[in-house]
Amino acid sequence: MKQNYRNLTVAILGAGTVGAQVAHRLLTHRAEHASRIGAELDVVGIAVRSLDSKRSVDLPAELLTTDAESLVVGADIVVELMGGIEPAKTLILRALESGADVITANKALLAAHGPELFDAADKVGAQLYYEAAVAGAIPIIRPLRDSLAGDHVNRILGIVNGTTNFILDLMDSEGQSMEQALATATDLGYAEADPTADIEGFDAAQKASLLAQLAFHTAVDVEQVYREGITKITLDQVRQARSQGSVVKLLAICERVAGPDGPGVSVRVHPTLVPDTHPLASVRGANNAVFVEAEAAGSLMFYGAGAGGPETASAVLGDIVSAARRHVVGGPGVAESTHANLPMVDPGHIDTSYHVWLEVADRPGVLAEIAQVFAAKDVSVETVQQSLTPDANGGPPTATLVIQTHRAPGESLDAVVNTLQSSDAVTRVSGVIRVEGE
Amino acid sequence: MKQNYRNLTVAILGAGTVGAQVAHRLLTHRAEHASRIGAELDVVGIAVRSLDSKRSVDLPAELLTTDAESLVVGADIVVELMGGIEPAKTLILRALESGADVITANKALLAAHGPELFDAADKVGAQLYYEAAVAGAIPIIRPLRDSLAGDHVNRILGIVNGTTNFILDLMDSEGQSMEQALATATDLGYAEADPTADIEGFDAAQKASLLAQLAFHTAVDVEQVYREGITKITLDQVRQARSQGSVVKLLAICERVAGPDGPGVSVRVHPTLVPDTHPLASVRGANNAVFVEAEAAGSLMFYGAGAGGPETASAVLGDIVSAARRHVVGGPGVAESTHANLPMVDPGHIDTSYHVWLEVADRPGVLAEIAQVFAAKDVSVETVQQSLTPDANGGPPTATLVIQTHRAPGESLDAVVNTLQSSDAVTRVSGVIRVEGE
Repeated sequence: MKQNYRNLTVAILGAGTVGAQVAHRLLTHRAEHASRIGAELDVVGIAVRSLDSKRSVDLPAELLTTDAESLVVGADIVVELMGGIEPAKTLILRALESGADVITANKALLAAHGPELFDAADKVGAQLYYEAAVAGAIPIIRPLRDSLAGDHVNRILGIVNGTTNFILDLMDSEGQSMEQALATATDLGYAEADPTADIEGFDAAQKASLLAQLAFHTAVDVEQVYREGITKITLDQVRQARSQGSVVKLLAICERVAGPDGPGVSVRVHPTLVPDTHPLASVRGANNAVFVEAEAAGSLMFYGAGAGGPETASAVLGDIVSAARRHVVGGPGVAESTHANLPMVDPGHIDTSYHVWLEVADRPGVLAEIAQVFAAKDVSVETVQQSLTPDANGGPPTATLVIQTHRAPGESLDAVVNTLQSSDAVTRVSGVIRVEGE
Repeated sequence: MKQNYRNLTVAILGAGTVGAQVAHRLLTHRAEHASRIGAELDVVGIAVRSLDSKRSVDLPAELLTTDAESLVVGADIVVELMGGIEPAKTLILRALESGADVITANKALLAAHGPELFDAADKVGAQLYYEAAVAGAIPIIRPLRDSLAGDHVNRILGIVNGTTNFILDLMDSEGQSMEQALATATDLGYAEADPTADIEGFDAAQKASLLAQLAFHTAVDVEQVYREGITKITLDQVRQARSQGSVVKLLAICERVAGPDGPGVSVRVHPTLVPDTHPLASVRGANNAVFVEAEAAGSLMFYGAGAGGPETASAVLGDIVSAARRHVVGGPGVAESTHANLPMVDPGHIDTSYHVWLEVADRPGVLAEIAQVFAAKDVSVETVQQSLTPDANGGPPTATLVIQTHRAPGESLDAVVNTLQSSDAVTRVSGVIRVEGE
């Protein structure tokens, strides 16, 4: 690891679910982050509303302050996770004016005052990052801003609100009514006490406005976004849709269209019937996904958790590391460095489960003999399936076993296969396939 | 649009499917790219093996040259799309030494000599971009390098070879044998005349080595990747897997593991049984997808086209714009600019298809009356479904119609709904939902 540079200072505004996670991870993963940046990150303070509030993670008391105004001046990187318009806006502007790079997850603020904030950053050559503002942990801002920057985005269809997707999915998969599903979502913490922002589509409209601006380089005020919530959707409609091969999703839709006066954009949020063969149709529960159609790239989809403290913190931390690397010469090179140098572990030491196909002699006792071979190598058998294939020439039929194992090291399975290959009971080991993703 | 900077020069090495597309788009989308960068991109030359070769896109003859060596010196940005180890490696090193940022899609070169190339870039503060080297158009390098840079990646499961996914999917969905499916893939251009690199897993192993290095900061030589191709997979196995609720995929797997001597990594490519509920199971045809599990972010998936000229060019162009923005102060600010300023088009002017739910009087002639309302506003009806719900109190049953329309402007549909609401035949318009993603 090279360490060419002075430590970088980070000020955090807000210690709610996301802020506390970000601070906690910066403090506990300091060395790992430093090795990826080429400089260390010093958390110089965490601004909170009250020093006595209960927090989801314990934070060092000496870092807590109620004086956010002083904290933002002089830090290299300011992380705004307070939410709301004020004082967040004033603090961000002050931080940018003092030359700090700013990271925020504040979609409401960006949807309402984005252009003003970006101009302020531009004026001093500072950066404003906001990966966490849309779709939580899912990288969507950076792909739209950078990866697709040479392409021409035509359309974005996004499931960007986890609460409404959870509710609609419960109606579809469990046959719950809208009221039941909302109550379930509230009980499980997927919906807030006042769910208006989610179920009436306000939250999705803010995200749509950010996505549209980035994709089409066009200012889209959140008030210009056509918005329709999910409250009028009935279980009958969800059932009828499913019987017709589609599923109801609340989509944020941003598209280039031919308007009455030439090219334009349409940005809207409304319940939508999506064919069940479309990749968005299989986005279940509180997950988010953003489907992007671009001229050259074709169709892309980005999928993952749209909310949650650690998940959103992951996106914020990615922005912090990106901002920090800007301060370090050769910084992004560190991304490709091999400072960790972990040893390669042989497949023989890797545990997976397996399906093993065997052609075996069709006589009594064979299954017991084979089971004994697995047991001798400590490979536990989960299920066995036997089938008989008649011989085309009238000879004895071929008996095939498919054996599913529990997880076992590769070398144990190899030993089993070797023993089976030399066993009288086995004509042929015809296949061995590992299982992943269980 | 601001234009603070001199034009930036771009040299392109290679004019195959991807190179020709990149050159073509740089030349034809010059103004659009300039507005996103804050400076114009001048293509100063395109190195080709022979001036007379046939190309997929016509390129200006005066830009073509066989002298790649001279071309790479002095350009701001060098784009290497020749493939193979030499002369690509020497040309890239020369470009980096002269201070150029380099973009490449050359996975074979990076898997074999990545660390040497990254060191060369680092030494002069140049950048080496390679988004197109893994999974074509899908942004996966940038998310791993930047978005997840503050997180801790534990596992990557990737469908990173379109040819083998196409073959396995044909076996699963059409019941073709391995031989038939390979022949189909060859006929349709999804497999090369010599398919070894794909079906024996060499291509996937190169990509696995790049993903593992980026995720685990550990040098992984492609020779260290455990590799097993798909040639031994039989239709019987694919069928049996499906009957057991899983599907066979060729996966590139990179994971942190507990090795015999402490933490280590396992990098391997082999046919794998994936439960059909896993997001990777529904990746069909020649598409790619990369599933990432990270400590804080949880599970993410990136999905799209893994190959193809325009698709891969999209990723290369994103890298070119990113590199160019590095040369322009306030450049990335341009990403969020609103230079395009397209007008917002009212939902009334947007064409979609609809499902309309109506409660109607149960008497003869009703359907004709309603159909007439749609026809009068030029909204074409695709299907009509009628159902009768008995009245709980013994009154007359409720008749419900679900009408699916063809695509029509929102204002026409609004007019239909207004007329229906005041029609004697209609008791209630109980729902109107748009359809997208068809």
